[in-house]
Amino acid sequence: MLSRFMSGPHPAKRRLVAMSSHLGNGPQNGGPTGPAGQTRAKVLTIDSMNPLVKKVEYAVRGPIVARATELEKELEKGVPKPFKQVIKANIGDAHAMGQKPITFLRQVISLCVNPDLLNNESFPADARERARRILQGCKGGSLGSYSDSVGVEVIRKDIAAYIERRDGFPSDPDNIFLSTGASDAIKNMVKLMVRGSGRDQTGVMIPIPQYPLYSAVTAELNAVQVNYYLDEDNNWALDIAELERSVKEARQHCTPRVLCVINPGNPTGQVLSKENVREIIKFAAREHLFLMADEVYQDNIYAEGCAFHSFKKTMMELGPEYSTLELASFHSTSKGYMGECGFRGGYMEVINMDPQVKLQLKKLVSTKLCPPVSGQATMDCVVNPPQPGEPSYESFIKEKTAVLKSLAERAKLVAETFNSIEGVTCNTVQGAMYAFPRIALPQRAVEKAKSLGQAPDGFYALQLLEQAGICVVPGSGFGQREGTYHFRTTILPQPDKLKIFMDAFTAFHNKFMKEYAD
Amino acid sequence: MLSRFMSGPHPAKRRLVAMSSHLGNGPQNGGPTGPAGQTRAKVLTIDSMNPLVKKVEYAVRGPIVARATELEKELEKGVPKPFKQVIKANIGDAHAMGQKPITFLRQVISLCVNPDLLNNESFPADARERARRILQGCKGGSLGSYSDSVGVEVIRKDIAAYIERRDGFPSDPDNIFLSTGASDAIKNMVKLMVRGSGRDQTGVMIPIPQYPLYSAVTAELNAVQVNYYLDEDNNWALDIAELERSVKEARQHCTPRVLCVINPGNPTGQVLSKENVREIIKFAAREHLFLMADEVYQDNIYAEGCAFHSFKKTMMELGPEYSTLELASFHSTSKGYMGECGFRGGYMEVINMDPQVKLQLKKLVSTKLCPPVSGQATMDCVVNPPQPGEPSYESFIKEKTAVLKSLAERAKLVAETFNSIEGVTCNTVQGAMYAFPRIALPQRAVEKAKSLGQAPDGFYALQLLEQAGICVVPGSGFGQREGTYHFRTTILPQPDKLKIFMDAFTAFHNKFMKEYAD
Repeated sequence: MLSRFMSGPHPAKRRLVAMSSHLGNGPQNGGPTGPAGQTRAKVLTIDSMNPLVKKVEYAVRGPIVARATELEKELEKGVPKPFKQVIKANIGDAHAMGQKPITFLRQVISLCVNPDLLNNESFPADARERARRILQGCKGGSLGSYSDSVGVEVIRKDIAAYIERRDGFPSDPDNIFLSTGASDAIKNMVKLMVRGSGRDQTGVMIPIPQYPLYSAVTAELNAVQVNYYLDEDNNWALDIAELERSVKEARQHCTPRVLCVINPGNPTGQVLSKENVREIIKFAAREHLFLMADEVYQDNIYAEGCAFHSFKKTMMELGPEYSTLELASFHSTSKGYMGECGFRGGYMEVINMDPQVKLQLKKLVSTKLCPPVSGQATMDCVVNPPQPGEPSYESFIKEKTAVLKSLAERAKLVAETFNSIEGVTCNTVQGAMYAFPRIALPQRAVEKAKSLGQAPDGFYALQLLEQAGICVVPGSGFGQREGTYHFRTTILPQPDKLKIFMDAFTAFHNKFMKEYAD
Repeated sequence: MLSRFMSGPHPAKRRLVAMSSHLGNGPQNGGPTGPAGQTRAKVLTIDSMNPLVKKVEYAVRGPIVARATELEKELEKGVPKPFKQVIKANIGDAHAMGQKPITFLRQVISLCVNPDLLNNESFPADARERARRILQGCKGGSLGSYSDSVGVEVIRKDIAAYIERRDGFPSDPDNIFLSTGASDAIKNMVKLMVRGSGRDQTGVMIPIPQYPLYSAVTAELNAVQVNYYLDEDNNWALDIAELERSVKEARQHCTPRVLCVINPGNPTGQVLSKENVREIIKFAAREHLFLMADEVYQDNIYAEGCAFHSFKKTMMELGPEYSTLELASFHSTSKGYMGECGFRGGYMEVINMDPQVKLQLKKLVSTKLCPPVSGQATMDCVVNPPQPGEPSYESFIKEKTAVLKSLAERAKLVAETFNSIEGVTCNTVQGAMYAFPRIALPQRAVEKAKSLGQAPDGFYALQLLEQAGICVVPGSGFGQREGTYHFRTTILPQPDKLKIFMDAFTAFHNKFMKEYAD
């Protein structure tokens, strides 16, 4: 009878445990108390759980962010703090920072959700027309039915048409896979490619600094993370010699199969030049790598002289020698000018994939049934916005332009302010939504951090949070060259908040540097 | 120069390949043609891809369903067929089969999407109040911001309150994890538990017949699928002796760590008695198993004398001896009376989980940022529906009751019709949305199928589709006792279509049986 509360994984062992408990050896590991005062051993413990999950790290939502949320609650309760509000600059979430939704987009989605409004003439005709078109593509005319696992057909066609307009090269709707945000698609692509152990184990080449989804997915799926370092001295450009070093070294112990590139860069904010994209493509071809191009910030280009050059277009322009390369490109509703993170819309275009593998990919995504259909509809609004002459066109362009113009101003302001502070240097934020400034931490601060068992930039970021209420993510969460220290901040606080943010940061930093001066 | 088009994974080997191509050995495997007529070898092929993904099967969206979609397109183009429409009874997708959304739910979601409507008095006050409340829980007051990875706090509280009302026992919002449909949460839970190889490899106990998500997840995550068979002769009840046989046999070669139970049953439609649930709980405790209770059909109970008994409530009632067991229970917006599949709403309640493991689970879900917020809002409407005295109450109850009443009638009609046909037997559809009739296939039909390399019930289902336009899923996609043949059909076609369906089925079946009579 007692054995059932003392059970371990093997019956024989369980019997022994039950016996020892009979002999009064006391409670087993953890868990609430059972009837006779014994505790029930947990089936699932930190020791018995999946070891790969334990290896996963995701700093963008890590302990510093959890502490920021605690501080917000303390402020609400009236606990005195040296700041009046917590500014969460840890994540690229525009609406959370006060950006307003694009009116047209929300009109279309609300019409899709509530078709009773379709004949309501207070909605513009083009919004109603878009909603009708999307609903016609949904089974039973409802956003509440499952779509095809790869996404609603009409939306895939709209995405393909968008890519064609963007690149000037054909796009096949059968190559489009809608997804639950870009993260979902990125994970599925890596999942297709992991295999083997030892020298045959799949290596995934990722930039350092990287967006930590890549290291998290690599850890969870048991692939080898193969780092290549971006060139901070050259505005985080991607140096081909470094790619070559990286792949060569990796081949000593694993099989690199995929090259991930984030352009515009996260957390680094660089925009790759056309020539750089060309060289990367040639490198991938030479080294027999599948290219994964994270292009979710394709609409977020700010610096003069910079432009977005898609990998697809650049490959196609390079002609048949390179246009047959395998490529997956990712896009999302979460970034750009719309910032619709919560709808979890996204897609990938996969070209030149082996047809048998593509069937396997379709099967894999079918086990999740389908991406959220409201997210798919949101994606449709992004790729199929109001056109000149349509009733919503002018207000749409006005709203879109205003957001992008303001982001460009904030990108400039943030980098300039950082560069005006002693001990902080920051590359130009050419695109995306982040600055990744470098901080020259005094040796005494480094030692203090180590004495607390913290990463030096983690210590700095935690102090910044506790003293100034500013939540950023330490550079160690993204990776950085040994002995350098950074943090990532978004450029998303609205202009009034950004001013408070930069002032509070400057005051904190100067105080910190004085306190720990060598 | 040429080597870059001929590259294989190892540089040395690649050089050899390039040389052989110089010698005119012709194209490599697959892919389009490169400049000099050579083809580029694919990085990712059926041989080099993840072998676990290849093992995944998901019949609910398998080849028969793909063929049904083709047939629909052929019909649209005017290709003559022996039927006028394809009836897709393969998937539990109520809206696709013509069920109308619940008005209140869509009002709330459209208000959340488009807050400009919040002061529009054509929306009932309770819908506007619900939407305001949800938006207050969203960062920046927008459905477009990321929520906490575990879900919007106010929605988690509403879910906990719902569970408390349902069970009469406390529920902690910190135990609630919103998810992208239930599938997502089920996958995450299994992911936490997979580990080891050989005797230590995690065994996942699943019912046979099962919903194929379970076998797909088990294959993808490299766990061992441990089958226990439901008792067809006893209306698909869950026999404890069979659980004991199953776990004992499994322990010879792996370590069973988790017991999955689907109640009400999919594809089998049974509703477990309270006594059965109690016995299962005692078995899990005895055998040291983590319980996963798939309770997504908890609102879909049709047969007289049947009631839904949640695992949580039953565990709690059993007292401290069992109330400390580890349990994850899953729910969804996709089923019930609302059938909102496309929004991908769902949650799990996890109780008695080791606190360290829970932190790991929170970290794991954070890598996907958050479940779709519109799906979370949909879940909120389900757990927090209009109350007596609120303006939407009466119409809500009317709509809800009408759907459930009609489903109960269809459940009865489907089983009775099947049982009236020679060579078909069907258990009572006590709950959920499916019938899983058994078909007595003649030996000649079995042989015919085998000669075509098809599973006998796959052959039958394909003939049913081609000749009658009815799309069901063969029993082999769910698992069944050796030598028995079944198929799963939903009970979701609307009454008028269901009549056509049953008539067409009867005619097909009788013709088939005559054609292959032994």
